[in-house]
Amino acid sequence: MWKKWVYLFSEIEKAEKYTGGQWDDVRGFLGGKGSGLADMKRIGIPVPPGFTVTTEACNTFISSGGTFPRGMWDQVREALRKVEKATGKQFGGRENPLLLSCRSGAKFSMPGMMDTVLNIGLNDEVAKGLIQMTGDERFVYDAYRRLVQMFGSVVMGIPDTAFEAVIAATRKKSGATTDAGLGASDWENITEAFLRLYRHRTGGDFPEDPFAQLRLATDAVFKSWNSRRATEYRNAAGIPHTLGTAVNIMAMVFGNMGPDCATGVAMTRSGATGGPGPEGDYLLNAQGEDVVAGIRQTQDITHLRVEMPGVAAELEEIARRLESHYRDMQDLEFTVERGKLRILQTRDGKRTAMAAVRIAVDMADEGLISREEAVLRVTPDQIDFFFHPQFEKKTRTTAREAGRLLATGLNVSPGAACGMVAFDADLAEVWGKKQGKPVIMVRPETRPDDVHGMLAARGILTSRGGRTSHAALVARQFGKPAVVGAADLKIDIGRREMTAGHLVIREGDWLSVDGTVGEVYRGELETVVPNLEDPWLMKLLSWADQFRRLRVRTNADYPGDAERAREYGAEGIGLCRTEHMFFEPRRLPLLHKMIMTDLPVERKEALDALLPFQREDFEGLFRAMNGKPVVCRLIDPPLHEFLPDHVALMNELSALKIRLKNAATLEELDNLITEINSRQKILKRLESLTESNPMLGMRGVRLGILIPELTVMQVRAIFEAACNVTREGGEVYPEVMIPLTSHVNELRVQREMLEDEARRVTEARGVRIGYKFGTMIETPRAALTADEMASCAEFFSFGTNDLTQMTFGISRDDAETGFLIRYLRAGILPENPFATLDQGGVGQLMDIAIRKGRSVRPDLECGICGEHGGDPASILLCHRLGLTYVSCSPFRVPVARLVAAHAALREKRSE
Amino acid sequence: MWKKWVYLFSEIEKAEKYTGGQWDDVRGFLGGKGSGLADMKRIGIPVPPGFTVTTEACNTFISSGGTFPRGMWDQVREALRKVEKATGKQFGGRENPLLLSCRSGAKFSMPGMMDTVLNIGLNDEVAKGLIQMTGDERFVYDAYRRLVQMFGSVVMGIPDTAFEAVIAATRKKSGATTDAGLGASDWENITEAFLRLYRHRTGGDFPEDPFAQLRLATDAVFKSWNSRRATEYRNAAGIPHTLGTAVNIMAMVFGNMGPDCATGVAMTRSGATGGPGPEGDYLLNAQGEDVVAGIRQTQDITHLRVEMPGVAAELEEIARRLESHYRDMQDLEFTVERGKLRILQTRDGKRTAMAAVRIAVDMADEGLISREEAVLRVTPDQIDFFFHPQFEKKTRTTAREAGRLLATGLNVSPGAACGMVAFDADLAEVWGKKQGKPVIMVRPETRPDDVHGMLAARGILTSRGGRTSHAALVARQFGKPAVVGAADLKIDIGRREMTAGHLVIREGDWLSVDGTVGEVYRGELETVVPNLEDPWLMKLLSWADQFRRLRVRTNADYPGDAERAREYGAEGIGLCRTEHMFFEPRRLPLLHKMIMTDLPVERKEALDALLPFQREDFEGLFRAMNGKPVVCRLIDPPLHEFLPDHVALMNELSALKIRLKNAATLEELDNLITEINSRQKILKRLESLTESNPMLGMRGVRLGILIPELTVMQVRAIFEAACNVTREGGEVYPEVMIPLTSHVNELRVQREMLEDEARRVTEARGVRIGYKFGTMIETPRAALTADEMASCAEFFSFGTNDLTQMTFGISRDDAETGFLIRYLRAGILPENPFATLDQGGVGQLMDIAIRKGRSVRPDLECGICGEHGGDPASILLCHRLGLTYVSCSPFRVPVARLVAAHAALREKRSE
Repeated sequence: MWKKWVYLFSEIEKAEKYTGGQWDDVRGFLGGKGSGLADMKRIGIPVPPGFTVTTEACNTFISSGGTFPRGMWDQVREALRKVEKATGKQFGGRENPLLLSCRSGAKFSMPGMMDTVLNIGLNDEVAKGLIQMTGDERFVYDAYRRLVQMFGSVVMGIPDTAFEAVIAATRKKSGATTDAGLGASDWENITEAFLRLYRHRTGGDFPEDPFAQLRLATDAVFKSWNSRRATEYRNAAGIPHTLGTAVNIMAMVFGNMGPDCATGVAMTRSGATGGPGPEGDYLLNAQGEDVVAGIRQTQDITHLRVEMPGVAAELEEIARRLESHYRDMQDLEFTVERGKLRILQTRDGKRTAMAAVRIAVDMADEGLISREEAVLRVTPDQIDFFFHPQFEKKTRTTAREAGRLLATGLNVSPGAACGMVAFDADLAEVWGKKQGKPVIMVRPETRPDDVHGMLAARGILTSRGGRTSHAALVARQFGKPAVVGAADLKIDIGRREMTAGHLVIREGDWLSVDGTVGEVYRGELETVVPNLEDPWLMKLLSWADQFRRLRVRTNADYPGDAERAREYGAEGIGLCRTEHMFFEPRRLPLLHKMIMTDLPVERKEALDALLPFQREDFEGLFRAMNGKPVVCRLIDPPLHEFLPDHVALMNELSALKIRLKNAATLEELDNLITEINSRQKILKRLESLTESNPMLGMRGVRLGILIPELTVMQVRAIFEAACNVTREGGEVYPEVMIPLTSHVNELRVQREMLEDEARRVTEARGVRIGYKFGTMIETPRAALTADEMASCAEFFSFGTNDLTQMTFGISRDDAETGFLIRYLRAGILPENPFATLDQGGVGQLMDIAIRKGRSVRPDLECGICGEHGGDPASILLCHRLGLTYVSCSPFRVPVARLVAAHAALREKRSE
Repeated sequence: MWKKWVYLFSEIEKAEKYTGGQWDDVRGFLGGKGSGLADMKRIGIPVPPGFTVTTEACNTFISSGGTFPRGMWDQVREALRKVEKATGKQFGGRENPLLLSCRSGAKFSMPGMMDTVLNIGLNDEVAKGLIQMTGDERFVYDAYRRLVQMFGSVVMGIPDTAFEAVIAATRKKSGATTDAGLGASDWENITEAFLRLYRHRTGGDFPEDPFAQLRLATDAVFKSWNSRRATEYRNAAGIPHTLGTAVNIMAMVFGNMGPDCATGVAMTRSGATGGPGPEGDYLLNAQGEDVVAGIRQTQDITHLRVEMPGVAAELEEIARRLESHYRDMQDLEFTVERGKLRILQTRDGKRTAMAAVRIAVDMADEGLISREEAVLRVTPDQIDFFFHPQFEKKTRTTAREAGRLLATGLNVSPGAACGMVAFDADLAEVWGKKQGKPVIMVRPETRPDDVHGMLAARGILTSRGGRTSHAALVARQFGKPAVVGAADLKIDIGRREMTAGHLVIREGDWLSVDGTVGEVYRGELETVVPNLEDPWLMKLLSWADQFRRLRVRTNADYPGDAERAREYGAEGIGLCRTEHMFFEPRRLPLLHKMIMTDLPVERKEALDALLPFQREDFEGLFRAMNGKPVVCRLIDPPLHEFLPDHVALMNELSALKIRLKNAATLEELDNLITEINSRQKILKRLESLTESNPMLGMRGVRLGILIPELTVMQVRAIFEAACNVTREGGEVYPEVMIPLTSHVNELRVQREMLEDEARRVTEARGVRIGYKFGTMIETPRAALTADEMASCAEFFSFGTNDLTQMTFGISRDDAETGFLIRYLRAGILPENPFATLDQGGVGQLMDIAIRKGRSVRPDLECGICGEHGGDPASILLCHRLGLTYVSCSPFRVPVARLVAAHAALREKRSE
């Protein structure tokens, strides 16, 4: 007895027994397609009869230098006899001919890489019989020519272009624009031409003998495993070359043999909404291609209940069975041949984000899958979709075809927005906030004092800056769609216009910005807004919350943000950038005064005047986060960021000097001189604050140590606010965070001074506040000396933006529009470390810091507040590192909740 | 029997037995002074008789609330009887009175903190007897008033200012300017006044009874251990409070009792040159103070052989004994009382750097100490001294007193230099190189294209910049004395002058710069040049070489430097900054062309033209370092550093435009337009290269990846040069170093490309070159992923300047003249991490990198090429970390050789 090389679809148990029973091994043995068909067969789904020649046979074929293993061909003929019996058709017979398909099927899908021959068994005689049987000459000759074409190219190596040239010539002769315009006689002529071509190219006749056809096709499929393109694909995809391919030989079925025939596609639930199914189309008396090609008007699948009630009921039952077997929504192809339903293929169905969520939740509620499974099935991108209006793909394609695509840039903040171009923040605010117009704010790059304009705009566009540029950070923070670094746009602020190639866009023109893909269009494109209050989404996220270990906080600087984030499920504030509060119109002059003066008295005056504003802000945050912790980071950016831009100031000065030259009255002269003096004073201070590498300069705790009055004021504001809200009956948990430390002594000095101030405030008001003092870990040294740091800090928060910059030695603003792009394209860096945490370097530092920190203080709270806190891959890493929480912008909170649950569930599974 | 509380100087063996015999314990028991005197006594050195009351007695005294331990006072009186017997004098006797000193003496010296009472035993009667005996009334009353003054202040707590006021009043009355001007009757009056003052303040008489004096003095010394100032000193110095102090009671001896008396100080060898001794001064019939006070003309110690041959011989014998006992040059005080020599004190003598080296070497040659010991005795500063002309301290003091000190700044490159001020590099070169004038180049700060001027100058002075600013680095590199960051100087380049307060210094004025201490003087100060070829130094360093494990290389960019460094003992080049070669006049235009063009053809032309220059430079380096490795670092700085300064360019453009306005002829107009266009092109490129944080921007390997032609040219030059020098018969070991890597893929990509080029060159020339490829470790990520890096690098070189910047998140140029100064002053950072390696952070990263690197490649060569490579504390750390070598500027090579030996010897000792 020879080894068993061939398994009927009904023989899956034998294959399981031989391989040991693991589904993965069965898949390896019969290939993906073969094992799938056999699996359907086993659970009673009607699939066309057929059988699989194993991958083992393929490997033996290859190692023996290209001969079939002994016994294999006999087993094929034996299996074929059983297929004939099952179908009642005869292979090579004229009356009721059996046609076969011969397809490759490896363990892993290699789309388009491997070979297929259809309609095996056709020859002149059989064709005639088939025409008699179906009455469809066009179909038969089309099928015949396909066999000759596929056999010719796959088995005999004739270039497919030679066959296509014949079809093209025929189309030209008959005046048809597409293949659909060719009639039965055209296809008959083409078939004859193909047979001549075959003879001419191979020097022999096309084999009339169906068995010869099958044998040669099988041989060709085996050989295709080691074709150059398949080998290269496997190299690229990392698939082992030793697996080999199986060959699936299956009866062809026809849905066009009469009125009791049909063909169609069906999804078991709605791919658009996730609602109950089935959803799909079918055609009576048609072939599979007709449904897809759009030549004939298809019927909605629900109509099948009217036209073929029995088949419809059977199909619905099969759909249920397939869903419960595969535990997912299925997309299946079926054919009804003479009243008999056959499922040709089933696979997991494609779906929208909304459908994905609903299907997962419904299936869990139906008991088909567990809640864990439901949570794991939804991807972070699908959650993110709910939070941003979008342009549909169709809309974008149409616009692109209409030449409306102006530029592409970095897709830094997802979502779609349309509006009128405003080239400065003040105009954007007037139009957007006062006049209620939709605005797209366009700048070469943005600065902190542009924020009021950005807030009033629907979307943001810059020609410079990278993924963590100011524009990108603020846009993500406020969920504003944004494209930055669109370098092809030349923005001329002075002329209030920008150009893209030869196109000129003026202030007030309409623009559409797609922050999801990073595209900018002229004019207004239609947007689609998903439903934010989707009940399935809420349910899914509440399940996610039950599974996750990692807590989720938000980065929020204003009470409004904090409230929104809380609605989205934030469990506290992980980062409040207290200096952002300074940028409001009434406050900025006070801060200017503080920066400009050398007199301690004036400095104190300015700070005293700022105190009530800061206190009020903190009160709002504490109320919004009632009962939850709020991390307040003390002032971080270098002071020059609060002063006007250097170039702008120089220009202003020039203008004033020209006016001085032309001053008409003495009074005007005096006023101008005063103005010039004041600006020159600012300019001088600005220049004294200028640093060659501001990122590594006078900022963070260094400010706190050199200007202690400033941080003392901030701490006073925090604790006064905490006392006030506590007295109102609120629960307040402030966490005071000191940024950019690199040596424990910085922390020691600041902490002592600031805790003194906190004590003074709370004792004076007689209120007890439970608070923590901690530090950001954003320099490598802070991470490396975390044991020392933890002796003086009750919590850590990883500032991974700066930590990444310093660990790599990369300035993100310069690099993300510069060499980093080249690095990513060339594969030197696997991904942008500012988008996804670099596990090898930055992650290693975090690991060191957490371990050292907790060695000293086991209950040390460790969070992350960099942009990475909203990135799925980074959140998974944060979970593995044992962080207490991630903090991200309000709009990313739901995504973080989901990913944190994924992390916990995957960990549980791998245990 | 009571416990033994009192030990005669002759009873040291008993003390050893009681304490267990360890010298450290004896010191703790008898105090430093007591054990030292006893030790001299033991080896037969004639010290005045006396005894020590133990620290144990002090501790018992303190814990009992201030009463002498039982039996102690009896033991004191008993010991005192033995002192009387030994001296033949009587305590309180009128004929031949014994006077005593009573001094504290704790285990560790606490200078000025503890109490002393001298001349105990004097009273009116005794004083009269002493006058009769010595015939020196002035001496006796001076001694008496000292007793009253010391006793009054130490024992009774009368403020010393009260006593000093009496002396001042007497001086005024008698018209004397100093105490030396007061005569015998003045001191007698003062003594009487002191006794009245004592009575007035304490309400009782000064105790006439010598035993009462001694008892109270002893009590006071015990109590002084817990005085506030002593307690605070111990807190600050980290001395335990439980040690207690001993009390030393010793016979006073007098050198002024007649012509057979003398007093003097002697050093056993020359403190100036280290030559054979003795060296010193003495006076016949005088008291100790007279020798030091300069009232009388002292005799050279050699004259003692004439005046007191026996004493002289004994003193020389004692000097030899003390040297051999203490194994170091001694500085001793002696007194001859009636022909009897007494040594009052001996201690290790102070010496100049030259003397230190010679004494260490001579003592080793004499067999007094081992060669290891000799090497350990010399400090790095002493070695450094040999390499720089210096201003003597006297010279500086005189100049300061003459109001010539202009400013102080950072002492970044040691040595002294005088010259005429030149405010730009070109003038400095013309004056210095062509006209041979001494020049001090003065700039607000320097840039790479100032180097030719710096080379031509004797010294460098800047008003901005820190310890690792360009000026500092270049100055150290070339051993030019330099002071940077002298912020008080206002330099006005336009007016060719600078001001310091109200003083104006113009171009051409003389200036003196002291880079050793960081001072700048007006005019020309006298310099002293130590001998570079000092034979003792050469010998000492050759011994150091035998002990050290760490190798020493040099940072050198030019053949001349390399040769000099080799003379100083460099074992290879650890860093050649290949881009420095570009800054020469014929090369810079070619580099400009390379930077300015967008055309690959033009770029190649420029690089092809640069190739021969680079090759020639490398040939010179390889010849100079024949047989030793040469690390060639590929281009590192950002390209904009090679272009003109932005402000200068703007100014040039303005000037050209004004000339354009006034152009007289059409030809002039045309020329001006061409010039303006070319500068505007440079300006544009400069602006496109501008980065917000250039330190973290487009430089290092990033240049190599974006402009591979540039690094390929450099590698070609290296290997062509290597082939040429090999053919001449030289031995060449190039090590090609890739800077600023942060991911192994950067290294992989560059290495493959560059090794291909190396192969092409060597195969074409048929020469085999043994070389290595490696990387700088200067980003934290490179250190953290050193295992990956080492898979692709055969050597590491730590670039600790940048590594420190990134680990701390500190931009050195900004910080060293900014907040870092405040940090160091406030003690937030213990030392400047750019001067001395930060062990906790940067050192930890180096440790990680070395361990990970060698886990993959056990023979990995690890060096350091940052500025720290020449810093003693950092070199010790490098040794402990197991580095292969340190690399430093040529002038630091001898220092590094010494310190490396220290490191190895200390390690051996601690094993």
